[in-house]
Amino acid sequence: MNLEDVFTPALLVDYQRLEDNIRKMAKKAEKNSVSLRPHIKTHKCIEIGEMQLRAGAQGITVSTVEEARVFAEHGFQDITLAAPLCHDKINAILALSEDTTLRVLIDHPKTLEILEKSCRNAETEIQVLLKVDCGYHRAGVDPKSEEAIRLARSIANAKHLHFNGILTHAGHAYGTETVSQIEEIAQQEQKVMVDFASKLERYSKDLCCEVVSIGSTPTCTVSPEFIEGITEIRPGNYVFYDYTQVALGVCEINQVSLSILSSVTSVYDDHLVLDTGATALSKDLGASHLTERVSFGEVFGDYSKGTLNTDLRIASLSQEHGKVTGKPAIVSNFEPGDRMRILPNHSCLTANLGNRLSVVEDDTVKDIWKIWRGRLEPKPISD
Amino acid sequence: MNLEDVFTPALLVDYQRLEDNIRKMAKKAEKNSVSLRPHIKTHKCIEIGEMQLRAGAQGITVSTVEEARVFAEHGFQDITLAAPLCHDKINAILALSEDTTLRVLIDHPKTLEILEKSCRNAETEIQVLLKVDCGYHRAGVDPKSEEAIRLARSIANAKHLHFNGILTHAGHAYGTETVSQIEEIAQQEQKVMVDFASKLERYSKDLCCEVVSIGSTPTCTVSPEFIEGITEIRPGNYVFYDYTQVALGVCEINQVSLSILSSVTSVYDDHLVLDTGATALSKDLGASHLTERVSFGEVFGDYSKGTLNTDLRIASLSQEHGKVTGKPAIVSNFEPGDRMRILPNHSCLTANLGNRLSVVEDDTVKDIWKIWRGRLEPKPISD
Repeated sequence: MNLEDVFTPALLVDYQRLEDNIRKMAKKAEKNSVSLRPHIKTHKCIEIGEMQLRAGAQGITVSTVEEARVFAEHGFQDITLAAPLCHDKINAILALSEDTTLRVLIDHPKTLEILEKSCRNAETEIQVLLKVDCGYHRAGVDPKSEEAIRLARSIANAKHLHFNGILTHAGHAYGTETVSQIEEIAQQEQKVMVDFASKLERYSKDLCCEVVSIGSTPTCTVSPEFIEGITEIRPGNYVFYDYTQVALGVCEINQVSLSILSSVTSVYDDHLVLDTGATALSKDLGASHLTERVSFGEVFGDYSKGTLNTDLRIASLSQEHGKVTGKPAIVSNFEPGDRMRILPNHSCLTANLGNRLSVVEDDTVKDIWKIWRGRLEPKPISD
Repeated sequence: MNLEDVFTPALLVDYQRLEDNIRKMAKKAEKNSVSLRPHIKTHKCIEIGEMQLRAGAQGITVSTVEEARVFAEHGFQDITLAAPLCHDKINAILALSEDTTLRVLIDHPKTLEILEKSCRNAETEIQVLLKVDCGYHRAGVDPKSEEAIRLARSIANAKHLHFNGILTHAGHAYGTETVSQIEEIAQQEQKVMVDFASKLERYSKDLCCEVVSIGSTPTCTVSPEFIEGITEIRPGNYVFYDYTQVALGVCEINQVSLSILSSVTSVYDDHLVLDTGATALSKDLGASHLTERVSFGEVFGDYSKGTLNTDLRIASLSQEHGKVTGKPAIVSNFEPGDRMRILPNHSCLTANLGNRLSVVEDDTVKDIWKIWRGRLEPKPISD
């Protein structure tokens, strides 16, 4: 199939760039002797997960029980659920863990208590990682606190839980202004974790960390190496990258593998209307701390050369419309039916809005892959 | 099923409020002798569409070909596709229109030319509405321009197109600061359309408008009546309403029928973490022009009383996490496993992120309805 025959708005993934991104990160992990456990929330796509495993990933990271369920069903046997455990889904997780190695996070004594009780009732055991805050301040115990040690001990002492190690996410890397700031955060992320692992080990041999896991695409991409003691990295976004990563200095435009094919539906004096709105791009503003320019993605000038048409700005999104502003002399070059490719601000949220990825090489669609978006939801009640 | 048994994050629709919203708008349309053609992009739910028809709606409005296809397949026979026509989907539209009354919009001569040609090739005809800009400046011809008359004439003269009338959307009502400003826009919307319809009719009897269609939830809700000459209203959001409508003064909190059930997964000194992120709420900031307070939705204090807990703020959303900030004395009242209900900023985008609506009365789930989100996408290519 040719790209011309794809209905817009369409999610396109550039196969060559995707493969390059997957290969480079796997190579970096191998060179540094750390395990790679990519976060599949970015793509939710079995075929991409399989490419990651073939390139050397040891397992995968997921953010929801539904992602774990779908990937386990497709043969993925080694999964870390890297979001604070939600009580109502514990039984579903324990059921899944019967046939799959599933690691879960704990960051609160109440959750530990419920998990231990649920395991006891289900007569099963589960691997647990302690979630650590390395500076992002979203979730995770403060590694300097006594509470952190107490919680690690409680996990190790719980009869049905296995203390497997520690895990963090340096999400604050997305708030930086320069690459050297990302490098600093990357060093902080690693040092905090290695120091805390040593502290736990000194405290008790039961608290020896088999897993010391870090991960964010900015920090994993800019770090040339990882210090001794880090055992695992969990980047997710790197398979696609996006305009946020470009703006942060993490990657070049022509490394971004995800784009949105869009149609012009109207042309006015000072703006175009696209058939591509908030349900196709998401309302993510990207690295808005770096610029006054509000644009819900960037329009490519020449896709293969990696240039943007910055004379156009995706100024606002309605549900199914995108309004692209520009000077009359620029806008008048377009007419309804023209197509453009858009570099998304945030690939993870954009990919979550489609059901299909069109896999392209140059102008040819070589495959169509399913995006397994969804969550645990009730089935219709019969009448 | 009890509400306690629903996995979070879950989309809840309050049946009583939904029914009230549907009934009130239908009654207003009936009282004013205008047709009601609700925009189903808000809910994409067959059962809600059927409630709207039973309450008196004459047909429905859709924003995508996929919405038209799904609703036509479920027996909806009278559909207006109220988005600028996208060339690559014209053949799909013409195929659909064989068994369904389908009206499309034109706002550009190039699109008219392509549509006429496609109809000729397919040996079919289609009803066309001219899209008019009543002040929103997103899409639509300027009713004061000669171009507007020319385009109406071209539609009427095209052999395979039937000029059916004119249509507008007062989206600028969402940028207002007071209800009286919405009322002004509502009057403007109606006057612009009635004046333009008269002008067309004076110009030629071929340009007589069978349909003079307006519609936005703010303008349709605040207008007690519609002036002579308006034949149709197309509100969409009113079935659910949302916090944007509350902030604009369009409705009260306890008229909003859509909420999100969410679980607390972590508790820290100054914030909570929810299992409800950007993939559940959307990153829509709501009526952000009215306040300095950035919150991706509001937490209910007491749902049945319609009070909000404004001590809590949904300060940021990651993909699957919501970070809710508050003073330590407030936050410490919660523990992991607690649940809360969230009033979404923008119901349409929030509903588009789920596959199921749990239909609730008090704490009982009385039904589960499917949300038909999706778009025309390619099927997997066989190997």
